[in-house]
Amino acid sequence: MKVTDLETVILQKKSYLCVGLDPDLNKLPTYLPKNAEGVLEFCLTIIEQTAPFAAAYKLNSAFFEILGASGWSAMQSIFEILKKRGIYTIADAKRADIGNTSENYAKAFFENMDADAITLSPYMGQDSISPFLQYPDKAAILLALTSNSGHIDFEMQKLENGKRIYELVIETSLNWPKVGELMFVIGATRSEEIKNVRRICPDNFLLVPGVGAQGGSLQKISKYGLNQKGGLLVNASRSIIYAGNGKDFGKQAGEEAEKLQKEMSQYL
Amino acid sequence: MKVTDLETVILQKKSYLCVGLDPDLNKLPTYLPKNAEGVLEFCLTIIEQTAPFAAAYKLNSAFFEILGASGWSAMQSIFEILKKRGIYTIADAKRADIGNTSENYAKAFFENMDADAITLSPYMGQDSISPFLQYPDKAAILLALTSNSGHIDFEMQKLENGKRIYELVIETSLNWPKVGELMFVIGATRSEEIKNVRRICPDNFLLVPGVGAQGGSLQKISKYGLNQKGGLLVNASRSIIYAGNGKDFGKQAGEEAEKLQKEMSQYL
Repeated sequence: MKVTDLETVILQKKSYLCVGLDPDLNKLPTYLPKNAEGVLEFCLTIIEQTAPFAAAYKLNSAFFEILGASGWSAMQSIFEILKKRGIYTIADAKRADIGNTSENYAKAFFENMDADAITLSPYMGQDSISPFLQYPDKAAILLALTSNSGHIDFEMQKLENGKRIYELVIETSLNWPKVGELMFVIGATRSEEIKNVRRICPDNFLLVPGVGAQGGSLQKISKYGLNQKGGLLVNASRSIIYAGNGKDFGKQAGEEAEKLQKEMSQYL
Repeated sequence: MKVTDLETVILQKKSYLCVGLDPDLNKLPTYLPKNAEGVLEFCLTIIEQTAPFAAAYKLNSAFFEILGASGWSAMQSIFEILKKRGIYTIADAKRADIGNTSENYAKAFFENMDADAITLSPYMGQDSISPFLQYPDKAAILLALTSNSGHIDFEMQKLENGKRIYELVIETSLNWPKVGELMFVIGATRSEEIKNVRRICPDNFLLVPGVGAQGGSLQKISKYGLNQKGGLLVNASRSIIYAGNGKDFGKQAGEEAEKLQKEMSQYL
């Protein structure tokens, strides 16, 4: 899906909500089987109930890989179902490696899974990311400033020119040749830094996780993060998908998603 | 497997060779089927012929993920077979994410696959790596200075205190609490930097890819990288596994592995 189509969806649905599918076996409603089949049913119910309020879905690959081959198949099925519904999909896989390996990751997620975007770790530099930028209508989403406590260890450290490492990542990668889109992950718990990020990259989409369970403020993120075309996806995972854990968990997830969408509609 | 057992193997076999299993469908011997079954047969033949000369095997997850669920099963089978033979195994997966996600990656690779070690990207800092350091007898292998051209983009950039980012990664992570082992990836094409790395971390194992197809010098790496206990795994992938592409590809792979082992035996 083209990024312009994503922009259209955001305006139509009045939502820049990305629902994060991190299906933890230990948190599934008790009536569901604790296996890939249960995870698939769980995710499909969440999608069914939240789709009217969501602009995109983000599948966290760790929660599928832990289930082995059947988890991998479930992840593939979910991408296929979302694709059929015309919904924007993100593989939250945090990959990147030397060029010929990254080419294989790009094929696995962009061709086999047909994900629209993938999250990537920038550490290894340009040739580890380039294979993901060679796909028109696909997006490489680079980790820049993350929502976890470990962001201070490296991302926030200052370089000899006074810039922080995450700023170097954004500035450097903006100069890399590309056919597809380049986006950045900026943690919601870093809302004071989003203003700074928008100064460096006014036009790129930002994927902002950390709202909800991780405590980021939707108001602040939206104030600093939105640009004229939207340019923002705010992800909520646990606060939506585990809103309930009975047979009506889907309905409760839908209600949480709707709350966020309503708030978003005010900021757009 | 404990790192002390790996040290014993290195001395017994007089080899610190790690054979990299990056099974590319396009490079398999033509008589093998171009699917997960072919990849499995290919890898098992390589293992059979190279095992006398190898201290460890490194499975590159991208080349299995591209095959979907059947590739994931093949990867699992190869880990199981290597484990039964008592061989040290590395999941070259370049993972790491926020804490609860990294816990799932750690379970997927350390428990389900029973890999002895996994490669990780340090970008997100301590809490993204800690879950992998909580396993006694397992190792977290952090990317520090890699063999690809992109290493200049971030890893080699200087901080305000004059240190390079890769040096900060090593120095910072050495202070993280751990139950398991901490190792570092240092590219073979950076042999002049290995001396510097050994100054910062004299005792940690180094995983050095980039010998062979990527052009690193085994002599230089060994001179600067070996410590009193060995402390070094040098990885070769393409130069071994694609040494031949006829029915005798296994034999040719074994001969390439033996050449490297013979050279290593001189340096130990």
